[in-house]
Amino acid sequence: MTVLGLGSMGSALAGALLDRGHAVTVWNRTAEKAAPLVERGARLAATPAEAIAASPLVVACVLDYAVLRAVTGSDPLSGKDFVNLTSGSPEQAEEAAGWFGARGAGYLDGAIMTTPEGVGSAEVMVLYSGPRPVFDAHEPVLAALGDPVYLGADPGRASLYDAALLGLMWSAMAGWLHGTALVGAEKTTAAEFTPVAIRWLGTVNRFLTRYASQVDEGRYPGDDATVDVQVAAIGHLIHAAGARGVDNALPELLKSMMERASEAGHGADSFASLVELFAGRVAAR
Amino acid sequence: MTVLGLGSMGSALAGALLDRGHAVTVWNRTAEKAAPLVERGARLAATPAEAIAASPLVVACVLDYAVLRAVTGSDPLSGKDFVNLTSGSPEQAEEAAGWFGARGAGYLDGAIMTTPEGVGSAEVMVLYSGPRPVFDAHEPVLAALGDPVYLGADPGRASLYDAALLGLMWSAMAGWLHGTALVGAEKTTAAEFTPVAIRWLGTVNRFLTRYASQVDEGRYPGDDATVDVQVAAIGHLIHAAGARGVDNALPELLKSMMERASEAGHGADSFASLVELFAGRVAAR
Repeated sequence: MTVLGLGSMGSALAGALLDRGHAVTVWNRTAEKAAPLVERGARLAATPAEAIAASPLVVACVLDYAVLRAVTGSDPLSGKDFVNLTSGSPEQAEEAAGWFGARGAGYLDGAIMTTPEGVGSAEVMVLYSGPRPVFDAHEPVLAALGDPVYLGADPGRASLYDAALLGLMWSAMAGWLHGTALVGAEKTTAAEFTPVAIRWLGTVNRFLTRYASQVDEGRYPGDDATVDVQVAAIGHLIHAAGARGVDNALPELLKSMMERASEAGHGADSFASLVELFAGRVAAR
Repeated sequence: MTVLGLGSMGSALAGALLDRGHAVTVWNRTAEKAAPLVERGARLAATPAEAIAASPLVVACVLDYAVLRAVTGSDPLSGKDFVNLTSGSPEQAEEAAGWFGARGAGYLDGAIMTTPEGVGSAEVMVLYSGPRPVFDAHEPVLAALGDPVYLGADPGRASLYDAALLGLMWSAMAGWLHGTALVGAEKTTAAEFTPVAIRWLGTVNRFLTRYASQVDEGRYPGDDATVDVQVAAIGHLIHAAGARGVDNALPELLKSMMERASEAGHGADSFASLVELFAGRVAAR
């Protein structure tokens, strides 16, 4: 297949395909980036048109959607399938699907849920959305990049999940750093704390699974731990962290959201009831 | 052994000990709470003194540390070992260790990292801190309550970890709810999103392990993803979520922390550099 764009992620994608023994044609705006891949057997195309002509499947990972259009805009695309792993918004994915579709090409939008060094691992998810037949036709090849996860026909869904999952990552990493700073104030290293934190996230995962049903049902029975009990508990955290010089903006925000949930009538409900706030169904105070 | 306090957690603890075939003496301020446990073979003591006299090991799970002192204050404690699973601060744990120690009793402070329904599962962590010999002597029995994790001699450490881990939980759950609200705005259920989110947290765990070394070294090379790149990416999340009516206070706070980290010279560093902010080493703006 063809890989358009050889930044660090595009190079990792092409490398993972070569690792699995696939014939790979590459193109990049500056040809020098292709050298390590050509050494490993990739064929370097002189133009995007030549690269696209070389393969029925084209994987694109360029700077943004404007660049994607620029490099594919003047070429015949009919009968080609494009897998676009360029970062962008759900709206850009929708537009691109329309644009490629109008030119007779198949189109999947995707998101690589790892850093370049993780590409190719079966543990890593690569999210795809777009027509099922296009996904099915290429799934075996795409498996070289990471475990392919199909999210449905809506082309914007992979990008939407990508944004939602990155948000989860930043929140989880920030919570971990807050905790690391807290125990660090008492001479506990991050290396000591982190295995316990990771194991704890396994328990938290079980809460998420239980709360997912509550979110979908719109009912949040607080049998296990109520919002009001957790308001008190996060107050203890804030006290312990503040006394040790830890920045509490994050738990202060979470506490204020819990208090808003309580004021909105969710004091005896579970933490999952905060989805009412996140979904914009509870007015800010 | 003896269990003092039969709220929902204390009852779960006594029940887990009975499940493993241990002889259990219980006491509670209101005796009625003991009925289901007595039916299962527990012995009900009429007073705390009688309950404490019945066993060399006393597990306490009462309302707070003041109640703990009140119920044990007038009894001979010499030669007893206390495992206190009452919720409290690191400072309260230190005080209690001194107080029990002065009366000739061994003392472990602990934290149960689950809700009452999870007690007894080997997947669940119960954290302990205090003298190693006291932990070693009772570890086989304590295993009935959940997997015993020993954190060191400092009696406040279990409570400190408890606070840090709960903070991580609230942050992770809030990030998950934000993502759930975002994909929910496009008709994706929490039940669809959550398994992908949980799998993604497995990838995030690998980032945490890598970043733990960076935190301990005080150097945060941004080889994988820099703070500045992530400032741009969280801007895309905020845009996508805002356009769908999702409350963005959480990602807005995280973005402002990333910007502060960048302004403090960490723009080309990894997200782990935000620990400098959490640890209070970067002034608020």
